[in-house]
Amino acid sequence: MTIRRAVTLSIGDELLAGETLDTHGRTIASALTARGCRVIEHRVLGDDASGIASAIESAASSADLVVITGGLGPTLDDVSREALAEAMNEALVEDGEARAHLDRWYAGRGRVMPAGNIRQAMRPVSARCLENPNGTAPGLQARLGEALIVVLPGPPKEMRPMLDGVLQAELPGSPRPAIVVRAFGIGESDAAERIEPLMRRDTRFPVATTVSRSLLSARIRGDQGDDLDAIESLAAQVEKAWHPFVFGRDEVTLPMALGTELARAGRTITTAESCTGGLVGAMLTEVPGSSGWYPGGWVTYENARKIEDLGVGAELIERDGAVSRSVVSAMAEGARRAAGADFGVSISGVAGPDGGSKDKPVGTVWIAVADDAGVDARCFHFSGDRSVVRDRAAKSAVQLARFRLRGDGAELLWQRDVRS
Amino acid sequence: MTIRRAVTLSIGDELLAGETLDTHGRTIASALTARGCRVIEHRVLGDDASGIASAIESAASSADLVVITGGLGPTLDDVSREALAEAMNEALVEDGEARAHLDRWYAGRGRVMPAGNIRQAMRPVSARCLENPNGTAPGLQARLGEALIVVLPGPPKEMRPMLDGVLQAELPGSPRPAIVVRAFGIGESDAAERIEPLMRRDTRFPVATTVSRSLLSARIRGDQGDDLDAIESLAAQVEKAWHPFVFGRDEVTLPMALGTELARAGRTITTAESCTGGLVGAMLTEVPGSSGWYPGGWVTYENARKIEDLGVGAELIERDGAVSRSVVSAMAEGARRAAGADFGVSISGVAGPDGGSKDKPVGTVWIAVADDAGVDARCFHFSGDRSVVRDRAAKSAVQLARFRLRGDGAELLWQRDVRS
Repeated sequence: MTIRRAVTLSIGDELLAGETLDTHGRTIASALTARGCRVIEHRVLGDDASGIASAIESAASSADLVVITGGLGPTLDDVSREALAEAMNEALVEDGEARAHLDRWYAGRGRVMPAGNIRQAMRPVSARCLENPNGTAPGLQARLGEALIVVLPGPPKEMRPMLDGVLQAELPGSPRPAIVVRAFGIGESDAAERIEPLMRRDTRFPVATTVSRSLLSARIRGDQGDDLDAIESLAAQVEKAWHPFVFGRDEVTLPMALGTELARAGRTITTAESCTGGLVGAMLTEVPGSSGWYPGGWVTYENARKIEDLGVGAELIERDGAVSRSVVSAMAEGARRAAGADFGVSISGVAGPDGGSKDKPVGTVWIAVADDAGVDARCFHFSGDRSVVRDRAAKSAVQLARFRLRGDGAELLWQRDVRS
Repeated sequence: MTIRRAVTLSIGDELLAGETLDTHGRTIASALTARGCRVIEHRVLGDDASGIASAIESAASSADLVVITGGLGPTLDDVSREALAEAMNEALVEDGEARAHLDRWYAGRGRVMPAGNIRQAMRPVSARCLENPNGTAPGLQARLGEALIVVLPGPPKEMRPMLDGVLQAELPGSPRPAIVVRAFGIGESDAAERIEPLMRRDTRFPVATTVSRSLLSARIRGDQGDDLDAIESLAAQVEKAWHPFVFGRDEVTLPMALGTELARAGRTITTAESCTGGLVGAMLTEVPGSSGWYPGGWVTYENARKIEDLGVGAELIERDGAVSRSVVSAMAEGARRAAGADFGVSISGVAGPDGGSKDKPVGTVWIAVADDAGVDARCFHFSGDRSVVRDRAAKSAVQLARFRLRGDGAELLWQRDVRS
């Protein structure tokens, strides 16, 4: 039977109490959607066997696949095994192989298995256990009527490989082709306006946009391998409409895009950060291999560091303040010179909550990029709290460095709010 | 009627496709739990009016409160209004005040309201609209049988204040007292063993532990204001059992704790980072007012930066390699001297995925803390990918600086894995 519709269940009192964020719902939805199976509902349930059992029965009557995560641990509040047995109206029996796996697991760690943990080797009579190379709890796979039921352990490290195994076995064939176009520096409504006809629901492959931490994504999904040309053409249209803000596709991050372009050009970049305090450096060095194009940089939080380490003139700070065109330009040039790098990028701003003034309210951030042709400084006014201001400032610096490297004189969205 | 049991519903095809992570479930669960209302189920549903309507009916029959988020936008796939009307078996009518709010909203922004947006002023006959100062879509509040039904807009900025308003009106009185003890440097199973009797479910206020990005939390919740002494005593027991790894309570972060202690002692700290590339600086400067105790630091990613900026001897790097006790010690001392700070903390390691060797595999990280009494360097072996290694290394550096400041010679959990 082809699996077309799925229901997912996440189990755990800690999820319903708001202590833990349920991320499995999204992980599994994303994996199923990519393989052409639609999730019709996701439910979060507490550690109550009867409640879970009736949710399994109800899900099995409306879906081809039910994926349950959590409740497979060794403690008494882990009741997903019992719930599945109740829904299937079957007894629990000990699984020989699962028991042997448990024994080996503890023996290999020189520990005695607590008596209660034997529960983890139990399964409903007609179910089978799914091997768990990364933990003690095996998964479970069973049939209930026409539906396939899968129970996976809660810890992500154990859940993910088991999910992949089930999908490969039960939803074989290549995943639905998909392209995600990624951009930064343009707002969602502006971005949507630029591609409005492509987003209409009555088109064959409607483009869907999402924003996360100011990063914009456009997702285009086909149904079959031969849709690849069609979605490629749509992706190209989005890239054109969102130029120059697009920095890559799929898993590419903004710093990764800058790094790739720097490496290709054989050039290097250094950083001089005030209000972001090292965030740009941290973003750049998140990219594996960044040592090839990033020698390091400076966190010049206090003015003395700007003066001593970067050679910023004390008189500039005195005259214009640390958050100013002149100082941020001198920071970028000073860092570039000191590091012997091709590009220097610098940030100085008021991240808040304190330190704002009438002329330079919280959210005012100067960013400069220097290269051998000179220095380009721009003023932004970011809205949001300290964390949002710093994050946007750091990403804007990376994007402006990309623009400079590519010879684009483009402006980022937030420059519209400039008070310089 | 006292509100004791709630069901929450999150609406949106993008949630079921795995494109957007549903965080409202947790936000609302956390707020309700704090006010003594238990969430018995959370469901995520697509943009289908009949499906939502039947979920509302089913929820209203088992809960006192049903909170629905999303589906109040102006587009045709926003159907929560229609679903509520269907569940209530009532017609939709235009709400005069809501309509006036919409007109003002667009007029105030110099824009013409798109015709379709008038839908946002509709409500089921017996429902009332909830004002939305942060957007166009009003919320809805209604009765279905005994249950209170609330529909809130999806954007978090609009949802949160409206939720707070509803809770204050419908669940008045002070929230349940709760204390969260926060720690870093000890694993969850070790930590749980140390407080096992406090975690038993049959105790009056069982302590619950969670881990997020290596940060450990113990949550203790009372039912009424007069439970405060009891939970205070439990929190103190957890703090004693987890000493010296505890850095604070409730909303306190690890960098915030270090900052507070530095400020109290009138001392300052600087950073010299290699593999973390600025992450420690970024963490420290996330704390408002960090300029009082953090002058700045260095990202010395390439060896030349370690030599030129921090005065690390080239012969040390040649002899011991950049990831070594001698080099990381010289980095901490050099940074401390150059910045004129009381403490210098430094990190040099192999974050991966490349760069590992037999002697120094990926995850090997040296961390040093220097002060006027000398320098203390330790070697860690972190497991996990590049991002996890860097995050743990940065947090370990902050925690080790705290230990040094307090005169604790404590070891962090991961030092057990040392290969120095």
